[in-house]
Amino acid sequence: MIVSKNLRWKYIFFYAWKSMLYFLCLSIAVYFLHHKFSFIDKLSVPFEAVATLSTALAIFLAFNNNSAYDRWWEARKIWGKLVNYSRAWGREVLTLSMDQEGRPNEELASWQRAMIYRHMAFVHGLRVFLRQRHPYNGIEQELMEAPNDYQQIKGFLPPEEFDEVMSKRNPPNYLLMLQGRDLQHAYDRGWISDYRLVRLDETLIEFNNHQGMCERIKNTPFPRPYSYFGRMFVFIHGTLVPFAFVEELGVWNIPLSLAINFVFLSLEQIGARTEDPFENRPGDTPLSAISLTIEENLKEMLGDTNLPTKLAPVGGVVL
Amino acid sequence: MIVSKNLRWKYIFFYAWKSMLYFLCLSIAVYFLHHKFSFIDKLSVPFEAVATLSTALAIFLAFNNNSAYDRWWEARKIWGKLVNYSRAWGREVLTLSMDQEGRPNEELASWQRAMIYRHMAFVHGLRVFLRQRHPYNGIEQELMEAPNDYQQIKGFLPPEEFDEVMSKRNPPNYLLMLQGRDLQHAYDRGWISDYRLVRLDETLIEFNNHQGMCERIKNTPFPRPYSYFGRMFVFIHGTLVPFAFVEELGVWNIPLSLAINFVFLSLEQIGARTEDPFENRPGDTPLSAISLTIEENLKEMLGDTNLPTKLAPVGGVVL
Amino acid sequence: MIVSKNLRWKYIFFYAWKSMLYFLCLSIAVYFLHHKFSFIDKLSVPFEAVATLSTALAIFLAFNNNSAYDRWWEARKIWGKLVNYSRAWGREVLTLSMDQEGRPNEELASWQRAMIYRHMAFVHGLRVFLRQRHPYNGIEQELMEAPNDYQQIKGFLPPEEFDEVMSKRNPPNYLLMLQGRDLQHAYDRGWISDYRLVRLDETLIEFNNHQGMCERIKNTPFPRPYSYFGRMFVFIHGTLVPFAFVEELGVWNIPLSLAINFVFLSLEQIGARTEDPFENRPGDTPLSAISLTIEENLKEMLGDTNLPTKLAPVGGVVL
Amino acid sequence: MIVSKNLRWKYIFFYAWKSMLYFLCLSIAVYFLHHKFSFIDKLSVPFEAVATLSTALAIFLAFNNNSAYDRWWEARKIWGKLVNYSRAWGREVLTLSMDQEGRPNEELASWQRAMIYRHMAFVHGLRVFLRQRHPYNGIEQELMEAPNDYQQIKGFLPPEEFDEVMSKRNPPNYLLMLQGRDLQHAYDRGWISDYRLVRLDETLIEFNNHQGMCERIKNTPFPRPYSYFGRMFVFIHGTLVPFAFVEELGVWNIPLSLAINFVFLSLEQIGARTEDPFENRPGDTPLSAISLTIEENLKEMLGDTNLPTKLAPVGGVVL
Amino acid sequence: MIVSKNLRWKYIFFYAWKSMLYFLCLSIAVYFLHHKFSFIDKLSVPFEAVATLSTALAIFLAFNNNSAYDRWWEARKIWGKLVNYSRAWGREVLTLSMDQEGRPNEELASWQRAMIYRHMAFVHGLRVFLRQRHPYNGIEQELMEAPNDYQQIKGFLPPEEFDEVMSKRNPPNYLLMLQGRDLQHAYDRGWISDYRLVRLDETLIEFNNHQGMCERIKNTPFPRPYSYFGRMFVFIHGTLVPFAFVEELGVWNIPLSLAINFVFLSLEQIGARTEDPFENRPGDTPLSAISLTIEENLKEMLGDTNLPTKLAPVGGVVL
Repeated sequence: MIVSKNLRWKYIFFYAWKSMLYFLCLSIAVYFLHHKFSFIDKLSVPFEAVATLSTALAIFLAFNNNSAYDRWWEARKIWGKLVNYSRAWGREVLTLSMDQEGRPNEELASWQRAMIYRHMAFVHGLRVFLRQRHPYNGIEQELMEAPNDYQQIKGFLPPEEFDEVMSKRNPPNYLLMLQGRDLQHAYDRGWISDYRLVRLDETLIEFNNHQGMCERIKNTPFPRPYSYFGRMFVFIHGTLVPFAFVEELGVWNIPLSLAINFVFLSLEQIGARTEDPFENRPGDTPLSAISLTIEENLKEMLGDTNLPTKLAPVGGVVL
Repeated sequence: MIVSKNLRWKYIFFYAWKSMLYFLCLSIAVYFLHHKFSFIDKLSVPFEAVATLSTALAIFLAFNNNSAYDRWWEARKIWGKLVNYSRAWGREVLTLSMDQEGRPNEELASWQRAMIYRHMAFVHGLRVFLRQRHPYNGIEQELMEAPNDYQQIKGFLPPEEFDEVMSKRNPPNYLLMLQGRDLQHAYDRGWISDYRLVRLDETLIEFNNHQGMCERIKNTPFPRPYSYFGRMFVFIHGTLVPFAFVEELGVWNIPLSLAINFVFLSLEQIGARTEDPFENRPGDTPLSAISLTIEENLKEMLGDTNLPTKLAPVGGVVL
Repeated sequence: MIVSKNLRWKYIFFYAWKSMLYFLCLSIAVYFLHHKFSFIDKLSVPFEAVATLSTALAIFLAFNNNSAYDRWWEARKIWGKLVNYSRAWGREVLTLSMDQEGRPNEELASWQRAMIYRHMAFVHGLRVFLRQRHPYNGIEQELMEAPNDYQQIKGFLPPEEFDEVMSKRNPPNYLLMLQGRDLQHAYDRGWISDYRLVRLDETLIEFNNHQGMCERIKNTPFPRPYSYFGRMFVFIHGTLVPFAFVEELGVWNIPLSLAINFVFLSLEQIGARTEDPFENRPGDTPLSAISLTIEENLKEMLGDTNLPTKLAPVGGVVL
Repeated sequence: MIVSKNLRWKYIFFYAWKSMLYFLCLSIAVYFLHHKFSFIDKLSVPFEAVATLSTALAIFLAFNNNSAYDRWWEARKIWGKLVNYSRAWGREVLTLSMDQEGRPNEELASWQRAMIYRHMAFVHGLRVFLRQRHPYNGIEQELMEAPNDYQQIKGFLPPEEFDEVMSKRNPPNYLLMLQGRDLQHAYDRGWISDYRLVRLDETLIEFNNHQGMCERIKNTPFPRPYSYFGRMFVFIHGTLVPFAFVEELGVWNIPLSLAINFVFLSLEQIGARTEDPFENRPGDTPLSAISLTIEENLKEMLGDTNLPTKLAPVGGVVL
Repeated sequence: MIVSKNLRWKYIFFYAWKSMLYFLCLSIAVYFLHHKFSFIDKLSVPFEAVATLSTALAIFLAFNNNSAYDRWWEARKIWGKLVNYSRAWGREVLTLSMDQEGRPNEELASWQRAMIYRHMAFVHGLRVFLRQRHPYNGIEQELMEAPNDYQQIKGFLPPEEFDEVMSKRNPPNYLLMLQGRDLQHAYDRGWISDYRLVRLDETLIEFNNHQGMCERIKNTPFPRPYSYFGRMFVFIHGTLVPFAFVEELGVWNIPLSLAINFVFLSLEQIGARTEDPFENRPGDTPLSAISLTIEENLKEMLGDTNLPTKLAPVGGVVL
């Protein structure tokens, strides 16, 4: 997530320079062919033809951006819910389970601690799980990345449990399964009643939902035809633009074409950079920061003092 | 679902070539009639008239695309929820049912296994049920299809139950009915309390909802007037386009008209290819892949090792 | 609901012919007054003025269509939920009520059957209730209508109950009230526990919601100012269109004006035909078909064999 | 709520005549200054400058209308839910409370009646509460108003309770509080179990939500900057319009400018008249009619015969 | 929240004057360079090029405004829900907890009072928590601010509890934790049953959700690329505008360019001022007013007479 109000130019050019270079060369070529060699005299395109495409393109890119933003914002909403229900989980584990005689009960206390720490493992594990990249997205090198490794959840689990979880194809889901098992155990011990058992199970269902919703966004790219044609139309339109004014404008045609193409290209690029929020890139949903918030809140509720250090923005970016 | 970032040209032309051919012939005819025979001299259409239609058409196609995408995305959301509640169902069956005395109970274990395998049958059966084609959609031959046959659920059910289910008009709904019957049985045996019985019933209601929501999308086409007029307007507009520039542009009119028509035609086609997500076509919601994910997750929770092999993308497509 | 991909021309002209006739006469008149009598020489409107209105009109009609579609789709969603919860109701009545000693219990079985048949009466009754027309909508004669009469629910209820229900102003709501009474009776007999009583009541609340949501759409027309001004603007704009090209185009002005007006008029008409989904018209939500689906599913769950015959599309329409 | 399909001209002119008068005078003045005195020869504005603003304005007004309609429709949805849950409340009060021994119980019956009549008081009271006008909305005189007075709820409550409720700043909320008190009383008498007590409390929470959602819409005007700038842009744009065609058109400029301005002004006015749905004006959500529907349904469920008379539309309007 | 229908010019100019000054200087410079020195004769930009950008810009700003408004309205909805559930909380605490023998119970009464007052502390505390500014938003001096200090919640809590809460990084979350602890205490005393304990816990989960949803909006700025490019495009477009008409219009070019730029700049500014609703600025969600409403409602339910004084609008603004 980018928090600084002004974008750095390096972010903008990192993604746009190849296309801008193409448009620059094109308008220079058009200028020379037309004014120096009078080669493409007949080819100057009537501006109205370009304008027709401009309007259609602007509307189409607005739709793409809208959908990309919806995906990004939904991702953020899911992690927001994960924050809320994690806090609720902490409170419920601590206040809905109780010793039947009301005595201090060390076994119960360590069970509560284990349930809450395993939940931290779930949260951090889900983050790692989601940020693994699909080969088909073709992301290579980014300006900035957060560390992303299951080793980071080792401290929240007993060692043998960590190994068991790691052996599964879907570790976060298996962690929820273990939470269910331990609820049954607490029920057997009489710490939670039938009714509170179900209440806690319903909170686990929420986590099932949060995980599954994230996987949905992660595994279902914004329909490729929309983004592919968006990209293609920007190039068709952008290629026609320098022909439209070449006659009237002369050399000023070059910066003007570039300005127009820059606007449309940016509109396309913003959407393309926003539509996948779990790729460990600067504009993504800040999973690391949110995971640490949850860890901090839960530890604070347990009374622990080893609170994690929150990440300060680096280069205007929180990851 | 198409996952590769670049569409293959064969996909694009598979659906668009007939219309593009019409537009090509039309612009060639207009060119010859005008420049060679001066036949349609008076007919050149003022460009502003076309531009009016272009704007209206772009807005209308944006609305169509928006609605088509909403249908597609809702279909994906429903199957996402089916993933989430399937996992929850697995966890609940395994952790909310228990032997009253806390002993290992083989009968209970085999009941749990049956409940979870019948759920896999429900998921695969729903996929098959949804992908049966309505004759009125007129889909004939696709570039790619997934196998779709109720035989694929045979292994998840006892033979006589499979036959019973197959004799019903709505097999997935009947499977949920059987789940309800077996919950009652578990209640009679004392494995689940009154309260947990209702909790499990509520999870079944979720599946009722998922199935019904899919049927709604499947059985209710996007209102035909919208898609019909979208198609018709693209042709009215596209037919006027070559007349608009024929005078100014000469032979260059042909590629320019084609480019403009290609953009509007593509906008219309993308929507038309997206609005029905359950037709077993390349751009559809990937029901086969999601069903296998659910099967894998549930087997992993049961500790089974016969995990299914996930489908790798073929030609950039996951079905 | 129209299911055939191609609209029949009679549907299109049934609603549009009056307006198209006006536009035809107008453009012919403008042509003659201008070219034959040079009467309105000074009056030719600058095309840009029309274009301004065109854009505003296209955007406004897109908003109207969007809202009309939302109403239509919401109506379909509500009836989709009614399908889902009807199935859940069937399952719950059959599996959550039980003889306390686990014996076969004929009284219970006939109570279950009565509860499920009364629900079918509710569904069919709601359909009839919703399709009664408000005089202020001014609908007279349609191309096609489904039979709509409370007599159709007579077979699902005991005779005296049918009469009692018919004496009420809101029969479907009273049927839900009776369901509540019979739940209390089952509770008194010990067939359902306190907890399951409430679970079944919550399913009834769903039906309260479905009914009320349909009544909301039925009784609250899309705000009249929006549709009224939409209609009016189409006429203001359409009246200006023939003046805009009359000079340049001569007699070709007539078909071109008609084409433009046809597009805008259609956009307006589609919305106007979609916004009221419960009027028993060809484009409506197919209440009859959905009611029969529910009846079929419930009878299948009861094991009854008198399944209703589903309606085949007539003239590409399902009602 | 306006139900007649054709708006009366007096509604349209009641709100628009001042602005239309301004635009009329302006175009007449521009005409005379230009054609008679050649005063503003140089000032004629290029039409493209106006067209730029027209497009931006049309898009902005579409956004405003969209948001206004959302507020209006949400208001209607909330009152729709109030209908649904009121019916559910009636059914629940009548069927979830019972004499423990199953005897006819007059005390219980009168408690049920009191609970249901107090709910009618809540509904009518909420209507009165919501329709009180904020001074900052500056509404003075309307064409039509419904009577709005707390005296209308007097008949539904015991006299001393009516006085107590009236002494509170938020009477509807206090009525819900009293409902909660009486539920506790029924629990003490053994008419409702612990579990059903909570179920009824949850229905009360729904009413808390409905009331609060209405208050939110009532007390939070659509952000003033949006409506203020919408109004201002219509005037900036409208003031430029007559200058754009004055040269080409002569005296016909006057009706054409008026027509264009009428369209944009109407678009702005419809939104402004729709955004506040609780002001007791003709276009509002019909609170009086809905309150009477609820009263009728509840009395019908109680078997009472003093059903209220429903309001017929007056002048095409239901209040 | 601004409630007065007319904005004061000082609000408008407070945010826009720097940009307007730039546009003013630019158009004056263009005028002089062109008409006096004939310096930029060749540079006059064809208007169609500007129009292309205008349309794209208008659509993009509409998207930005739409999203900004959604954030603002969601913030208001969350606080609306907080109102609703606060009232429900008051009612539930007062009517769902009871002395087991039905005697007047002073200890219970003081527990109820403490629970409700701690909730007021939660509400006011959440307001203070949310209004703390992030340094990266760079807000310096506003025209108007509400006092925002945790000292304002001191009166609602016992002193030692206040200190404990203040020592936490997330005080509102810790207050909910304490509410959970006290519910357990009430359960131990027998004032609430197992079932009602869970019902009250579910109301606490609502508050978890409200807090977390607000934090989500607070901590996740509207994606910076969208607002950054919106701003940038307004300047690119605005810089081209004076060049487009300079030739035709002469000195009138200056006011016309300013008018066009004012419209686009305002569209951009309204969005930018709306997208962050918790910054203690005039256009924000009125947290102070809503907190006082909750306090008032809860005290009224307790029968307390020290009702807070509601804030009257100051300068047309409620904070």
